[in-house]
Amino acid sequence: MSTDPGTLSAERILDTAEEVLRRFGPAKATVLDVARALGVSHGSVYRHFPSKAALRAAVAERWLARVSTPLVEIATGEGPAADRLRRWLRELSRSKRRIAREDPELFDNFQRLAAQLEDVVATHLEVLAGQLAVIVADGVAAGEFTAADPALAGRAVLQATARFHHPAHVSEWTEPGLEDDMAAVVALLIDGLRTRPAG
Amino acid sequence: MSTDPGTLSAERILDTAEEVLRRFGPAKATVLDVARALGVSHGSVYRHFPSKAALRAAVAERWLARVSTPLVEIATGEGPAADRLRRWLRELSRSKRRIAREDPELFDNFQRLAAQLEDVVATHLEVLAGQLAVIVADGVAAGEFTAADPALAGRAVLQATARFHHPAHVSEWTEPGLEDDMAAVVALLIDGLRTRPAG
Repeated sequence: MSTDPGTLSAERILDTAEEVLRRFGPAKATVLDVARALGVSHGSVYRHFPSKAALRAAVAERWLARVSTPLVEIATGEGPAADRLRRWLRELSRSKRRIAREDPELFDNFQRLAAQLEDVVATHLEVLAGQLAVIVADGVAAGEFTAADPALAGRAVLQATARFHHPAHVSEWTEPGLEDDMAAVVALLIDGLRTRPAG
Repeated sequence: MSTDPGTLSAERILDTAEEVLRRFGPAKATVLDVARALGVSHGSVYRHFPSKAALRAAVAERWLARVSTPLVEIATGEGPAADRLRRWLRELSRSKRRIAREDPELFDNFQRLAAQLEDVVATHLEVLAGQLAVIVADGVAAGEFTAADPALAGRAVLQATARFHHPAHVSEWTEPGLEDDMAAVVALLIDGLRTRPAG
């Protein structure tokens, strides 16, 4: 499977790196494995990613962006903030569960990779909390929510729903009643965000 | 370390089984290991626990009761429900974090044991959610909270705080700001439980 080095894009390297990660796991996957699978020298890979650490981070970032990017549309969309919050959280939970179900090996390997990339994960969580903050701030502007600090509230909502999207809970995601449980938690959080009289 | 079989109580067997579990892990620990450590025949152990499964479940139940039993006092105590809820959740989180920090090996082995004992864990979670339901129901009776279904609300509060007490999150418990994060989540949940006008 030889490749014309001229056509070697960062995107193709990342596709292959993901496949190598699926097969070998984060502990064993090397830049040389990726170069071999592409039929290029490891120098060609290093031209795009200056180190193994940079390649791993880029793979993880792309993977996490697949989860966070589609959510932007819901966060910045139209309609009542409470509805958007519910949809956003349901979509986050469902997309995580879908990946875990459809490609459990890759999901597991990514989880182990992410455990070594604290900064990448922290940034991902900030992106998600930021999207929630946008929804909360919109709700406050519309008089639907009260929250002195939408950023803090967004972070709290993300953490309060960890059981439904955090990969550490993957073994619980097949439990019956999970969607009902999430609906109850989200309803309580929305009540907490809703306008109440000052007194 | 020989033992007079006449003094062999269930409690002593459980103490020893816990020690064996710490050393060997749940995959390798056997009833024979426990009997050996006590200097008795395995028949003496089976007199108290009819099977290996029964012994493992009893070890796990005792371990989990160490977390849940001290919380009863807070759940059924005096004072505003919101205060009790905060204290109860803080104490649950702190006791889990304390065990994980002081005896990480046993914590880890218990986590692996618990993964095989879904019924024991489910009962434990029901006990905890039930204590929260008592606090919520008290708050409703005092006009402090509104909740049509305190049992549902108790379960939702427990799940919404998983990040701060669920063992799957142990690797995050050393993060700075964890107590602040928990305070923000709990404040939001209490707002959600608080009395609001019907309109």
